[in-house]
Amino acid sequence: MADLKTRIAQEFGTPQLVVDLDVVDRNIAKAQATCDAKGIANRPHIKTHKSVELMQRQLEAGAKGITCQKIGEAEAMAAGGADDIFISYNLLGEEKMARLARLMQGVTMRVAADNPLVVEHLGRAAAQAGTPLFVRVECDTGRKRAGVETPGEAIALARQIAATPGLVFEGLMLYPPEDGAAVTNAFVQAVRDGLAEHGIAFKALSSGGTPNLLTLGAIEGQTEHRAGTSIFNDRMMMAAGYARQEDCALMVYTTVVSRGGPERGILDAGSKVFTTDTGWGLTGYGHILEHPEGEVARFAEEHGFLDLSRCNDRPKVGDIVRVIPNHVCPVVNVVGSLVLVRSDEIIGRTEVEARGALT
Amino acid sequence: MADLKTRIAQEFGTPQLVVDLDVVDRNIAKAQATCDAKGIANRPHIKTHKSVELMQRQLEAGAKGITCQKIGEAEAMAAGGADDIFISYNLLGEEKMARLARLMQGVTMRVAADNPLVVEHLGRAAAQAGTPLFVRVECDTGRKRAGVETPGEAIALARQIAATPGLVFEGLMLYPPEDGAAVTNAFVQAVRDGLAEHGIAFKALSSGGTPNLLTLGAIEGQTEHRAGTSIFNDRMMMAAGYARQEDCALMVYTTVVSRGGPERGILDAGSKVFTTDTGWGLTGYGHILEHPEGEVARFAEEHGFLDLSRCNDRPKVGDIVRVIPNHVCPVVNVVGSLVLVRSDEIIGRTEVEARGALT
Repeated sequence: MADLKTRIAQEFGTPQLVVDLDVVDRNIAKAQATCDAKGIANRPHIKTHKSVELMQRQLEAGAKGITCQKIGEAEAMAAGGADDIFISYNLLGEEKMARLARLMQGVTMRVAADNPLVVEHLGRAAAQAGTPLFVRVECDTGRKRAGVETPGEAIALARQIAATPGLVFEGLMLYPPEDGAAVTNAFVQAVRDGLAEHGIAFKALSSGGTPNLLTLGAIEGQTEHRAGTSIFNDRMMMAAGYARQEDCALMVYTTVVSRGGPERGILDAGSKVFTTDTGWGLTGYGHILEHPEGEVARFAEEHGFLDLSRCNDRPKVGDIVRVIPNHVCPVVNVVGSLVLVRSDEIIGRTEVEARGALT
Repeated sequence: MADLKTRIAQEFGTPQLVVDLDVVDRNIAKAQATCDAKGIANRPHIKTHKSVELMQRQLEAGAKGITCQKIGEAEAMAAGGADDIFISYNLLGEEKMARLARLMQGVTMRVAADNPLVVEHLGRAAAQAGTPLFVRVECDTGRKRAGVETPGEAIALARQIAATPGLVFEGLMLYPPEDGAAVTNAFVQAVRDGLAEHGIAFKALSSGGTPNLLTLGAIEGQTEHRAGTSIFNDRMMMAAGYARQEDCALMVYTTVVSRGGPERGILDAGSKVFTTDTGWGLTGYGHILEHPEGEVARFAEEHGFLDLSRCNDRPKVGDIVRVIPNHVCPVVNVVGSLVLVRSDEIIGRTEVEARGALT
């Protein structure tokens, strides 16, 4: 029998995103066990895989609900059986509120808010739905993304939520930087103390991020963790010290289609497959398993530019190589279709239901 | 009546990709007129819009065939009525050859090749189809992407094509850098002279690139031009000197969902909408029409980080802003759905048929 790379190229053509379910199962089990060991609920973020089938595996392994970033993601996952969804994002506007209210008919919905206008809109959705909406105040403890910047703002927002009919103030949402435990703990304690003066207590303390699984337990009172990338891992998670190469479940199978010069070549996957994401001090845009000294140096939309200057053994036109992308989440989102394998057996192909969910 | 931004948010939610068809029509007419003025056939690259409806507008305006980069794009456009398609890419492998042969049943197909293995595979597709396949030798005259690097290689490849049953050697494919006319002209002349010694002449000399429309005519003997981005334009085409702001047909309508600090804010569109593409010396990831001194400084997957430090007038939570992306092609590819307007009238929504075509 031909090798896996050849069979995938023959059946599906390249480039393809190939996911090894054996590795996925291990990765799901590892994140679940990490949370279980600390008594923290695992609420995986589906933004990485956006697939009903993979969400179901996470729930079967013990996940307590899921996390989404978009209403469209929540709708796709609800259609696939999710009944407890946290949208960790500020939602605004009547179009979104109408959809949120519809979701609330069948699903326990939890949402984030970091400002009064969002809380006001969420109140309208709850009124429309006639069922309670659980709201967590997003707090920024160093990442400078969304989230209130001070305990005082968090307290004011929690009081607004508690005073809004239909909304339940459930707790705080965090997404601290990897070295942010001390700052975060002080912030949370100040909010807790301040709210106690108003007779308001809270239970949910949700943190997130795959690299933060490495130090899980450092946030005092954390009740829930949202990790996304850990299901597949990628070059960034290797750089972050969370994953080894053998923990990377998704690889791009791509063919060398041109070798214009001795030190360079072209892959049939460019920025429209890999995206140009980078970070964690990475050089280049992917790790080539067959040519680890080679570099995916840059991209055109459908061309991956190979720098082979440091390679002794260089690929020839027609060779298929496997590349671990820098950042797996946007790759899945662009491509929307995954080939599933177990070791060297092709299992099938799955669509990514929440691919490219805009709103 | 509410303004366009409000109506789009109410009907579709944000973020949305909004295309002004008035601007599209002007852009199509301009590229066509530029080619017509030089007597060069216009063969637009559909990689930018990937939409049957927009392709049809290009054909109606006078385009002579279209250009694709992937078989999947060609299949989608053939289903939408294209009958003359150039795939400007090295195609390899039996899965692709089978699909190419099927396409050849109804469509005049032209393809590129820069190495002997690709020519060998194309020969098999032609044999399978039983109709002629027109092949152009891709020549690299400075971009260091795909393409043979020397006239000698081009001549050898042209002879291999001419000697392969079912293949017709049709000419050369170029994609020169913006300052590459002199080098390109010398390269092409050397190929012409070399092939004449073997009694081989050719007619097609195809060049490409929207910025190269600015100097169209500089490549001696050019018969055809492939421009993609000119239908929409973007921040890169503005930086390249091809487009003005009013020539940008596609904008991302996005809502300010968070204002954590006085100098910063968050848009509800991040790298999963805009991609992280950059180039042409650009700073940041988009031009904000309402706040031109503001900067889309960086992205998380669903967060656009606004740097408002240089803004006097700063947006508030709930404001909708229009952003011209750095590079429009991957944005359309990710999102796959466009809202069509004419000035401030909403026309409807169109799906992007060849969205995310992998293979």
